[in-house]
Amino acid sequence: MNYRIVLFYLGRVLGVGAISMTIPLILSFAYGDGSWPHLLTAIIIAGVPALVLSAKRFRKGNLFAREGYVITALGWLILSMIGALPFVMSGTIPNYIDAVFEVVSGFTTTGSTILTEVEHLGPSLLFWRSFTHWLGGMGVLVLILAVLPMTGDSYHLNIMKAESPGPQVSKLVPRLRDTARTLYIIYFVMTLLCVLTYYLSGMQLFDAFCMSFATAGTGGFAVLNSGLNDYSVLSQAMATIWMVLFGVSFNIYFMIVRKDVKGILKSEELRMYLGIIIATSLLISLDVFFHCYRTESYGMSVHRSFFTVGSIMTTTGFAIADFSIWPEFSKMIVLGLMFIGACAGSTGGGIKVSRLIILLKQAKKEIHLLFHPKAVKQVQLDGKTVEHSVVRSVNNYMIIYLLVFTASLLLVSLDKFDFNTNFSAVAATMNNIGPGFGAVGPYGSFSEYSWLSKIVLTFDMLAGRLEILPILMLFHKNTWSRHF
Amino acid sequence: MNYRIVLFYLGRVLGVGAISMTIPLILSFAYGDGSWPHLLTAIIIAGVPALVLSAKRFRKGNLFAREGYVITALGWLILSMIGALPFVMSGTIPNYIDAVFEVVSGFTTTGSTILTEVEHLGPSLLFWRSFTHWLGGMGVLVLILAVLPMTGDSYHLNIMKAESPGPQVSKLVPRLRDTARTLYIIYFVMTLLCVLTYYLSGMQLFDAFCMSFATAGTGGFAVLNSGLNDYSVLSQAMATIWMVLFGVSFNIYFMIVRKDVKGILKSEELRMYLGIIIATSLLISLDVFFHCYRTESYGMSVHRSFFTVGSIMTTTGFAIADFSIWPEFSKMIVLGLMFIGACAGSTGGGIKVSRLIILLKQAKKEIHLLFHPKAVKQVQLDGKTVEHSVVRSVNNYMIIYLLVFTASLLLVSLDKFDFNTNFSAVAATMNNIGPGFGAVGPYGSFSEYSWLSKIVLTFDMLAGRLEILPILMLFHKNTWSRHF
Repeated sequence: MNYRIVLFYLGRVLGVGAISMTIPLILSFAYGDGSWPHLLTAIIIAGVPALVLSAKRFRKGNLFAREGYVITALGWLILSMIGALPFVMSGTIPNYIDAVFEVVSGFTTTGSTILTEVEHLGPSLLFWRSFTHWLGGMGVLVLILAVLPMTGDSYHLNIMKAESPGPQVSKLVPRLRDTARTLYIIYFVMTLLCVLTYYLSGMQLFDAFCMSFATAGTGGFAVLNSGLNDYSVLSQAMATIWMVLFGVSFNIYFMIVRKDVKGILKSEELRMYLGIIIATSLLISLDVFFHCYRTESYGMSVHRSFFTVGSIMTTTGFAIADFSIWPEFSKMIVLGLMFIGACAGSTGGGIKVSRLIILLKQAKKEIHLLFHPKAVKQVQLDGKTVEHSVVRSVNNYMIIYLLVFTASLLLVSLDKFDFNTNFSAVAATMNNIGPGFGAVGPYGSFSEYSWLSKIVLTFDMLAGRLEILPILMLFHKNTWSRHF
Repeated sequence: MNYRIVLFYLGRVLGVGAISMTIPLILSFAYGDGSWPHLLTAIIIAGVPALVLSAKRFRKGNLFAREGYVITALGWLILSMIGALPFVMSGTIPNYIDAVFEVVSGFTTTGSTILTEVEHLGPSLLFWRSFTHWLGGMGVLVLILAVLPMTGDSYHLNIMKAESPGPQVSKLVPRLRDTARTLYIIYFVMTLLCVLTYYLSGMQLFDAFCMSFATAGTGGFAVLNSGLNDYSVLSQAMATIWMVLFGVSFNIYFMIVRKDVKGILKSEELRMYLGIIIATSLLISLDVFFHCYRTESYGMSVHRSFFTVGSIMTTTGFAIADFSIWPEFSKMIVLGLMFIGACAGSTGGGIKVSRLIILLKQAKKEIHLLFHPKAVKQVQLDGKTVEHSVVRSVNNYMIIYLLVFTASLLLVSLDKFDFNTNFSAVAATMNNIGPGFGAVGPYGSFSEYSWLSKIVLTFDMLAGRLEILPILMLFHKNTWSRHF
């Protein structure tokens, strides 16, 4: 383990945390909500070590997959632990475990909350809570890569690989720094457009910003106790569109910028992603119309279905309907979507559509081999052969995913809730959705879980966002050895 | 597709069905329960085509994996459809879909029932219902291989591979026929010993036989409405021991016969299997003692826990405690055991302990590769390298397993039950356990499900017992082409 480089990056991460918190600090003065001392303390706690660690000159050194994982996992953990301080100090979330849960839920763009009344937080802390979604969506380390002057692209790619979700991470442009910048520019522009449409559709400017952070990062924190129910149908429809857009791989937007229509049309992941959204939305709209919303028009059922499917599939977790009381068939579709998740290379979570495609093609290939035992066939995606190492890593991911899921479910079952609540709570956190069914449904909260369950679910959120391995690595003895 | 050889084998399967039903026929005369006309009709319906199809001389021909799968899948389906006739004709299970569900549940050694009062069936039909467990446990086609004179071992191994559960199927002795015979002799002797201990522990002789069939096949059908509750604690403890023994790979018993102590000690699957049973039983015994059975002694909690763990892990499905009302933690352990299942090469179902070991070792290997990217490491089991094709087939099995599970859950969710019931119903049928939680708990039944759900769950039982691929192959267009 190259500790020097790990500490260097952790310093930068703390720096990002300190700088980010200056925005709510300024808001706190503007709104006069009294949160400024708490924010300032947190900024100092993050800023001082950031300055100390950054004072040392950056020495080029070995940064392998292992260092990339450790930097990412520790960076996210430390950032969350400091980001939680203002909530504890202000007394709005007195319990530190609860506050870390809430902030991890923010950074990992999960959106699960332990708060029952969010408006108590006041504007500056509400803003900070929503802003964590935006930072976590594209990634803190990708942001650092975008602004940090550096040499040794291939080394630093290991950081990007550790933080960016999906089975394959590729550079859009030859230089890593330009790739990170391009991603952030697209992200920034799209977020601004989102703010604009929200504002024009009738939201307050503050709400439009905060809700855009939650939409862009596919997070799910709202700023009103009523969630999105008090916004206009137009705002809700805008949210549907933007959620679906932010669930698309950013490679696609890069292709749009480069007018690469062929590349876009060739994307199997995009086709399957949109196909699933349309098919499941229509199925649900019929099911809920006949069983729940008969008093409303069918159009409203379609509206609610598309919104919910867009929200769940992209792992945002906004709600304008309590899907935990929907008929079992629709609930099971929603549960299935929770696991599938968004496109790789988007800000969304879950297993990812491209992994699903690789798994399906692999199964198809194996069945084909039963008929032609000697055939040589490879899994292809977008017309290109998927490398064997990628197929293997997808399989491996699924195995570890199932193991972590099972262990989490077992631990959470020590709590007082039923299977419906526990299973969906683990699914909703590990796939970075937000709400589940039962007690943790869209209009419930995670507050009633014990501290043990909250720690387990916090772990699951981080494991889900960072795709498990970086977090698991922290517990491996070899990670901390100097000899490797 | 070599239709000639498929028809030849299907004829033999029907023959086994006809001959098997003569035992309950004789019982029917002995007990005078009036079921003989129904049994006789079924024997004729199975026997006539059996004679016609067997009249043609067996021609040696190509019998590839595909033919093996089709023979197995169709054989099991036809046998179940004919085995269900006596129940329909006698009016004890008037609905044919229900009757097929019940008999498939029998042959696949699942033990899920749509009956609420089993004693209504009368002795001969009760016997037939239990006897299907025994036939299905070791396999109908393995029985045929044991008695059929044949040449071309390597071809016929494809049938054994299709019917026998587990990631790897190997011959115990050089000749396939001798392997099949050895398996059936061990099975027969162990079943007789089981009958004896049950009888000596206080069961009626009829019950001892029927319960032994259910134990040996790891099925789970009981012959009393009260299940096992009215038998002595000694009988129940005997059942625990025998269930655990029948969940062990028969290779181990073959090693015992050959006094190969080293081989037994080397078996990682056996160690893990016993380890899981002991560890989870003790965990559950504590959980249920403090939450459910405080009025009883802790010894009784241990008794109930070991019985339940043995019953679920081996996928038998007997119950002396309503585990669907246990605390969530114990329920989740039970649910986990449902998926793990018994040892490969036993009569039990589920994913199998050896697959779990291969998956765990694979994950461990991949994590190791993160530290040593250039290391060459292979998955080993019992000191031998697991072939890459086996590892791949295990991965493939898991993918298809998850897909079939998800699709089944979705279809069953169209019914009126909750997530708890539906999820456990699919888990209990696909892993050939029997009872689940909620409405399908140990003291419930599957009778209230719609015909669609019953068909889906029947499919799942067959898919679980035959390890999915043979059943899926029936729906593949290439299977029915002459050109392959």
